[in-house]
Amino acid sequence: MSRLRVHISTSLDGYVAGPRPTLEHPLGEGGEALHEWAFALTAVRELHGMQGGSTNASTPVLQEELGNVGAEIMGRGKFGPPGGGPWGEDPWRGWWGDDPPFHKPVFVLTHHPREPLTLSDTTFTFVTDGIESALEQARQAARGKDVSVGGGADVIDQYLAAGLVDQLELHVVPVLLGGGARLLEAVGPGPRLEQLRVVDAPGVTHLTYRVVS
Amino acid sequence: MSRLRVHISTSLDGYVAGPRPTLEHPLGEGGEALHEWAFALTAVRELHGMQGGSTNASTPVLQEELGNVGAEIMGRGKFGPPGGGPWGEDPWRGWWGDDPPFHKPVFVLTHHPREPLTLSDTTFTFVTDGIESALEQARQAARGKDVSVGGGADVIDQYLAAGLVDQLELHVVPVLLGGGARLLEAVGPGPRLEQLRVVDAPGVTHLTYRVVS
Repeated sequence: MSRLRVHISTSLDGYVAGPRPTLEHPLGEGGEALHEWAFALTAVRELHGMQGGSTNASTPVLQEELGNVGAEIMGRGKFGPPGGGPWGEDPWRGWWGDDPPFHKPVFVLTHHPREPLTLSDTTFTFVTDGIESALEQARQAARGKDVSVGGGADVIDQYLAAGLVDQLELHVVPVLLGGGARLLEAVGPGPRLEQLRVVDAPGVTHLTYRVVS
Repeated sequence: MSRLRVHISTSLDGYVAGPRPTLEHPLGEGGEALHEWAFALTAVRELHGMQGGSTNASTPVLQEELGNVGAEIMGRGKFGPPGGGPWGEDPWRGWWGDDPPFHKPVFVLTHHPREPLTLSDTTFTFVTDGIESALEQARQAARGKDVSVGGGADVIDQYLAAGLVDQLELHVVPVLLGGGARLLEAVGPGPRLEQLRVVDAPGVTHLTYRVVS
């Protein structure tokens, strides 16, 4: 059975992005620190067409995710641009250039209809009829593999509150952002969690929970 | 050098107590779940004069804390009663009966002066002149050992924001409370953290950080 999995980096104070995101700093003030652990890894740099990097205790965590996830769901906030709104005449093509790092089908939740956008081996499909429809379409596209919801915080919280998430994986980074987009803001009490796995890695702790109800 | 250490159980969504605490449920709605991992341990049950319990991966974490901490600081909210205010004629003696589980000097931050209270081998000293004075008095009382600040969230956040904490140890419990007293609410950005230790134990993950600035 294809599971719905959350994968996201958070600060120790629970933010997945810092305050005041801009075009130059899409992750908000201080938000880049949430992803330093990942960009130190060869496995992640390759996805972004970058050289270098190394292997550490985070590598098998990432490889398990890459090997088992067949489609991603994201919110309009993660796709961008900041501010949202109608797409306009020269529509935004995401943050990631002509070769996005997903390399799998991506479903973008938005209020504004738009034709699919294919960049290299990633196709972005824009879904306007809600989170359950996006999940259904992503499951189809994942061809038996799992589906990941990768942000933002509000979209993850919506899937959790709706009882649709099977597994919650937080990459907890030892930084305090003090503001921004907070995960798990409007979810509990509700989903029961079971601690599945804890991985201590350089600059990050990977916490994996099964959502049991 | 005697260090100032934070030790506290939190939910995955960052609460150290649930919403709406009462005399019957001092930890708020759902808050008891934060301490189930601890009350499963013989080492903790003994402190409370209780039989039974077992030993698991949390035991050495607790034993290290018990062995190295010589005094505790707590807020009036943790000491009680809910609502706070002047002590009155028949003053509140804490939640813990005639043999409190601390077995060491405890310093209670309060706006209302009061003579020290000794119950068995725990003496509560009431400090009205601020967090730095409480820390100084606790360091004296700890006789070279570390000082712990054990809650509530607001007191821990005050010590963190003031740059006085050397080590932050969170016992992260796989539960979502959805409200209550949130830790790290008014701290970042500021203190830089270094991940020191991660321990995967039954029903809890112990995360220890050094506060480096």
